[in-house]
Amino acid sequence: MASQSPQVALTPSLEGGWYTDQSVFDAEQRAIFARRWLCVARASEIPRPGSYLTVTVAGESVIVVRDADHHAAAFYNVCRHRGSRLLREHHGVCGPVIRCPYHAWAYGWDGALRAAPNLPDPQRDNWASLGLHAVAIEERYGCLWLNLAPQPQPFAQDTVRQLLDRMGSDELVARWGLERLATGRQTVYEVAANWKLIVENFSECYHCPSVHPELTSVLPEFKRRRGTLHEIGYGAAYGDGVGGFTVDGRAGLPPLAGLSDTETRRYYGLVLTPNVFLNLVDDHVILHWLQPIAPGVTRVTCVWLFDPDVLAAGYDIEPSVQLFHTTNLQDFTVCEGCQLGAASRVYAQGGYLVPVEQQLQRFHDEVRAAVAADPGA
Amino acid sequence: MASQSPQVALTPSLEGGWYTDQSVFDAEQRAIFARRWLCVARASEIPRPGSYLTVTVAGESVIVVRDADHHAAAFYNVCRHRGSRLLREHHGVCGPVIRCPYHAWAYGWDGALRAAPNLPDPQRDNWASLGLHAVAIEERYGCLWLNLAPQPQPFAQDTVRQLLDRMGSDELVARWGLERLATGRQTVYEVAANWKLIVENFSECYHCPSVHPELTSVLPEFKRRRGTLHEIGYGAAYGDGVGGFTVDGRAGLPPLAGLSDTETRRYYGLVLTPNVFLNLVDDHVILHWLQPIAPGVTRVTCVWLFDPDVLAAGYDIEPSVQLFHTTNLQDFTVCEGCQLGAASRVYAQGGYLVPVEQQLQRFHDEVRAAVAADPGA
Amino acid sequence: MASQSPQVALTPSLEGGWYTDQSVFDAEQRAIFARRWLCVARASEIPRPGSYLTVTVAGESVIVVRDADHHAAAFYNVCRHRGSRLLREHHGVCGPVIRCPYHAWAYGWDGALRAAPNLPDPQRDNWASLGLHAVAIEERYGCLWLNLAPQPQPFAQDTVRQLLDRMGSDELVARWGLERLATGRQTVYEVAANWKLIVENFSECYHCPSVHPELTSVLPEFKRRRGTLHEIGYGAAYGDGVGGFTVDGRAGLPPLAGLSDTETRRYYGLVLTPNVFLNLVDDHVILHWLQPIAPGVTRVTCVWLFDPDVLAAGYDIEPSVQLFHTTNLQDFTVCEGCQLGAASRVYAQGGYLVPVEQQLQRFHDEVRAAVAADPGA
Repeated sequence: MASQSPQVALTPSLEGGWYTDQSVFDAEQRAIFARRWLCVARASEIPRPGSYLTVTVAGESVIVVRDADHHAAAFYNVCRHRGSRLLREHHGVCGPVIRCPYHAWAYGWDGALRAAPNLPDPQRDNWASLGLHAVAIEERYGCLWLNLAPQPQPFAQDTVRQLLDRMGSDELVARWGLERLATGRQTVYEVAANWKLIVENFSECYHCPSVHPELTSVLPEFKRRRGTLHEIGYGAAYGDGVGGFTVDGRAGLPPLAGLSDTETRRYYGLVLTPNVFLNLVDDHVILHWLQPIAPGVTRVTCVWLFDPDVLAAGYDIEPSVQLFHTTNLQDFTVCEGCQLGAASRVYAQGGYLVPVEQQLQRFHDEVRAAVAADPGA
Repeated sequence: MASQSPQVALTPSLEGGWYTDQSVFDAEQRAIFARRWLCVARASEIPRPGSYLTVTVAGESVIVVRDADHHAAAFYNVCRHRGSRLLREHHGVCGPVIRCPYHAWAYGWDGALRAAPNLPDPQRDNWASLGLHAVAIEERYGCLWLNLAPQPQPFAQDTVRQLLDRMGSDELVARWGLERLATGRQTVYEVAANWKLIVENFSECYHCPSVHPELTSVLPEFKRRRGTLHEIGYGAAYGDGVGGFTVDGRAGLPPLAGLSDTETRRYYGLVLTPNVFLNLVDDHVILHWLQPIAPGVTRVTCVWLFDPDVLAAGYDIEPSVQLFHTTNLQDFTVCEGCQLGAASRVYAQGGYLVPVEQQLQRFHDEVRAAVAADPGA
Repeated sequence: MASQSPQVALTPSLEGGWYTDQSVFDAEQRAIFARRWLCVARASEIPRPGSYLTVTVAGESVIVVRDADHHAAAFYNVCRHRGSRLLREHHGVCGPVIRCPYHAWAYGWDGALRAAPNLPDPQRDNWASLGLHAVAIEERYGCLWLNLAPQPQPFAQDTVRQLLDRMGSDELVARWGLERLATGRQTVYEVAANWKLIVENFSECYHCPSVHPELTSVLPEFKRRRGTLHEIGYGAAYGDGVGGFTVDGRAGLPPLAGLSDTETRRYYGLVLTPNVFLNLVDDHVILHWLQPIAPGVTRVTCVWLFDPDVLAAGYDIEPSVQLFHTTNLQDFTVCEGCQLGAASRVYAQGGYLVPVEQQLQRFHDEVRAAVAADPGA
């Protein structure tokens, strides 16, 4: 009964186990999330020297702190003495040293050990070896990006390369000035679906007409089931009678400064694997980043970014926010439906990609290659 | 200390791990619950064409729908495209097609693919291969029975055979007219015990005097610790002063039509492995079906079935319902006590069956044989 | 980045996996908690013949009952027939037999089978083989100690030996008269940390100045980060202006009878691995026992023991209780911080012990040796 699919001439999708097996999840955490550049926060979340965040990356708690030179630094949140967590709050401001709450070992903002009670003097020779384990960090596009790899590939070869592949150059994204935009809203979604289902969902518009009535009203060409990823630099046009990128098509906010005429009244979607989606419209930016929690659980943070002057002026951002918040909820619901199916024995061999979903194949290849190269735990 | 049982001349029971190990549970799900006929619902739950249920069998979500010819059909609840769950409600009425909520692929009530947006015309040749995966279904005894096996054994060789072995013929059960009875009460119990402990419990009356004061008051011969399974066609007699099969022995409801004199004032218990218990008395029927959830968790659905005219006339069914509801609660409590002991190191080799429990041995042999034949995941 | 620690000349601690791996936990349960003597309760919890407790040791439910001769006896809480739990309450008083709630097999307080319905007479020969599985028990220091090993090592070689190693003789502990002290307070802490982190924490005072302001006010020498375990028979002196072993240093209760002058105004800490801490001060005793629940969860029971006459007289024990309750909460918080770090990849090789923490090395060696000798499940 469960075997009537001998030769379907469609591209196969990933097999069901890719979405449900703990061993696959663990391999992805090692091979992808502990080796690639990941967005973990907006840079504005650590505004001043001593401001810190603790974030979780590939299961690791990492301290991100702004140092005296206003540079961001990152360290494993693990004392070198007996492994105690150093900072337990999600964010805060630390003093001139980060002091372990257990035995009072103290580290500078550069991670160096500064004090350790009762450690005999001869050990001082070893102090240079007893600094916090560092994590690579970049502050780009107004975001903080971490890479847990001992020898990380350059950010330019990972994230920037993807941006160039999608947009042709970095000029367009540069004109959006992500560094100077301010967060108008931040929402965290706990999604009962594998992280890859969420990336796949964002990578195709085949589902747009059946899932997104509001979004396809604003972007009528999405009713043709093709998004913006198929052509370098492509943006989808607002519909003729549409006032702006809002939940009901009413006019939006004053446009961001510096955009060209061809960039207004257009929506640009970008996927920067493994964990970022970027959505550019003429009056705001929507940024998503993903954190896989378990094979069937992903935390998605979504921030809506605006011109700080527009926020300060008290404009109503709600119609803008609601369009993608509605879209998010619609997407995450269908992703959760796929997660339920992925565990079925009739999905053990996976499903199919139709031609308009071909963007997914590249993502699948990328994941397959990374996991194949994983040397194991 | 834990080793003083060298040569006890009693039949051994199953070893403790049969009730606690995840690998045993998984093997049973494959070898028994994905290969045998299972009762999943009363047929009346899908009364009209388009009425559907979604049920879980051996971890699989299955759609059961009544088609235009009033036949029941069943399919895996998994879209052939990218695995989305198709129907997420437990029951409802679907339109002429079952449409996937993700990309709008649509299937008929026969499982055939009817529509798939953007699927190129040449692919139409493959559409016959893209129907929903079917599940074997039988509508018998007023119940819906599913079998996940690719080539299921005939229902007659599995379930009917057991009924004949117990009753000698199918005449007696036929006289109860299970198809025309109506559900007066349905209760779902979440039991913290392995499904086999519940089958074992129903298969012996050794526990009746210590566990079931109400039941043994109505059926005094149960105080002799022997139930009804030891003799073909046997039914246990109500006590002399007992008015009916009720919690306090008061008179019950008008008797069902068509029963012979020897069938009134008697209780017949049947076990139809792997997941059904049937209890026949002269004025109603109690039907249990089991759904294993985890090694130590089983969901038991119990329905009390009555003559629809009696229900319509407004008779008080509560004294009838309460007798077996009370019995159920008593049984499930002692089953949960055995589950707790099954994990002990001193139960690793299992316990013993006394002679009056010999029915259990056949069940143990059946389970051992099925799992031994399991080819693995 | 995660590899800057080539040659630090400090003693290594246990590797992170010792605190997080289920397989290590299982091995420890077998090799340590099912083979060593464990404190499970105060003896006063079963005051009279027939009084019983059910306690969990190494995952096993054990009945502890006081027999007609006032001796404590212990048995696995598992019926020999089909494995049912016999007693489900945490404590109570049982009748002259312990009767299984399922099929009414009945056992004496000595564990012998006394009644089994329908068991054929020839089987009576086997009844001697059908008694409850016994567990070794000792009643010492006012406590009930269990040992699940089939052939337990003598209590004197395990627990008493440790006490002698720590104190030089058993005279000092004997003078405290633990058998006649009464429980003034009992608190159960659910700690999100591996049991070994809690033993390590109690075994060093390196953390005292940073974690325990109240305790180090009463015992100023603890500010020097050295506890009482480094020297046979050593007790730490109260500070000069300190009135007693209370949370704010006020005077405590009337001293226990029979202590010598050198024993007043001193605190003695003892570790009796694997699961007991003992704290002796001149007016009360604080006793901890540990129960590992999972790699990252430990239940700690702490009792405060006083002269029964002092309790009867209505003295305020709160200032005494609060000192160690406060200390407990401080300790368990830092232990939970270490548990979080133990799972980090940068702690896979563990951390370091400074010279003043050398007591931990013996404990680590003891655990390593026991697990190395574990023959497996």
